[in-house]
Amino acid sequence: MDDLTAQVREFAEERDWQQFHTPKNLVMALAGEVGELVAEFQWLTPEQANAVMGDPEAEARVRAEVGDIMIYLTRLADVLGIDLREAAVTKLAEVAIRYPVDEVRGSATKR
Amino acid sequence: MDDLTAQVREFAEERDWQQFHTPKNLVMALAGEVGELVAEFQWLTPEQANAVMGDPEAEARVRAEVGDIMIYLTRLADVLGIDLREAAVTKLAEVAIRYPVDEVRGSATKR
Amino acid sequence: MDDLTAQVREFAEERDWQQFHTPKNLVMALAGEVGELVAEFQWLTPEQANAVMGDPEAEARVRAEVGDIMIYLTRLADVLGIDLREAAVTKLAEVAIRYPVDEVRGSATKR
Amino acid sequence: MDDLTAQVREFAEERDWQQFHTPKNLVMALAGEVGELVAEFQWLTPEQANAVMGDPEAEARVRAEVGDIMIYLTRLADVLGIDLREAAVTKLAEVAIRYPVDEVRGSATKR
Repeated sequence: MDDLTAQVREFAEERDWQQFHTPKNLVMALAGEVGELVAEFQWLTPEQANAVMGDPEAEARVRAEVGDIMIYLTRLADVLGIDLREAAVTKLAEVAIRYPVDEVRGSATKR
Repeated sequence: MDDLTAQVREFAEERDWQQFHTPKNLVMALAGEVGELVAEFQWLTPEQANAVMGDPEAEARVRAEVGDIMIYLTRLADVLGIDLREAAVTKLAEVAIRYPVDEVRGSATKR
Repeated sequence: MDDLTAQVREFAEERDWQQFHTPKNLVMALAGEVGELVAEFQWLTPEQANAVMGDPEAEARVRAEVGDIMIYLTRLADVLGIDLREAAVTKLAEVAIRYPVDEVRGSATKR
Repeated sequence: MDDLTAQVREFAEERDWQQFHTPKNLVMALAGEVGELVAEFQWLTPEQANAVMGDPEAEARVRAEVGDIMIYLTRLADVLGIDLREAAVTKLAEVAIRYPVDEVRGSATKR
């Protein structure tokens, strides 16, 4: 992960894009990219969505969108001083307590 | 990264949540979490947004949202068979060609 | 529509919230509310989503989210000087040309 | 509003697109369009965002995106049986109670 953070940071610095990479702007960029991924899936039936990686053109678009999202998420985390992996692991531990295995099995109800 | 993927997968399997974790649903969950992160920043001035990690309560919320996003992005990538890091590195290489350093320095214009 | 625009504007002015209602902030607020609506549907099967208005609690949440989205969209359009209805009708006419009835019937492929 | 609802409905029915216009899909389409609007503003400074309608090219893109959002919001409301205007007015009344004028003036803190 650190390696990717460094690559994305270098990419931005070489282009003098730090001025654009404020937290607010990066959050918007992340939302914009997620919107593109959502658009990729919006008209697919569940079955078509499950099989999306079997269609080479759709697969390429989905990979590119997921890559874009990961790039901006990595950059945002870097700018905010957040370790992405640690943030995920910490949150997963909290969610595990809120959703005990034996109480929520098979249920998607929010708590 | 692989470690996190395994943890999130185990978390889902223990709760029998694979049935909910379809590509379409996970893309929506990702969008929902990004919406929460956007909401965290929506009324902040650029200056307030830049200083958000200096406010312990806001920092905790931002870390939690970034964690949620990373969890769902990891889970989505796992379900789609995408290596997150590889997808980001591949996309970064493509973007680097589209935005040559000496042509785009200091400019945010899209290509 | 004009009536709603006036109501939302008055709501904001009474609270001295014009300072927060910049185009950039309102776009983010709109995205945040749409994220909440997405979250309402994320784990539902297509069948459950189709029947969502038959569940009084879910119906109330969906109505509230749709209301929030309409409020922010109305406010954003007001601040930008856009007539929502006109923008939609104009765009619909453009899309009608790009998607001629006899060429696209029954197909969701993007053009 | 009813007029727009009827126009959008006719547009969909002529193309036999009702099959794609499920609540879940329309919520995603709405999120995708909002993502495009967010992308339009992501790299703008607050000052540039405030002046966006003074740039003819940006203005055209913003109008088109706002039009798209209104089209999908109208269609979603139609499919769900929600009166958009009524949903907004009802929600505004609720928010007015939660945010009394004399307690929240000039403050963006959430309640």
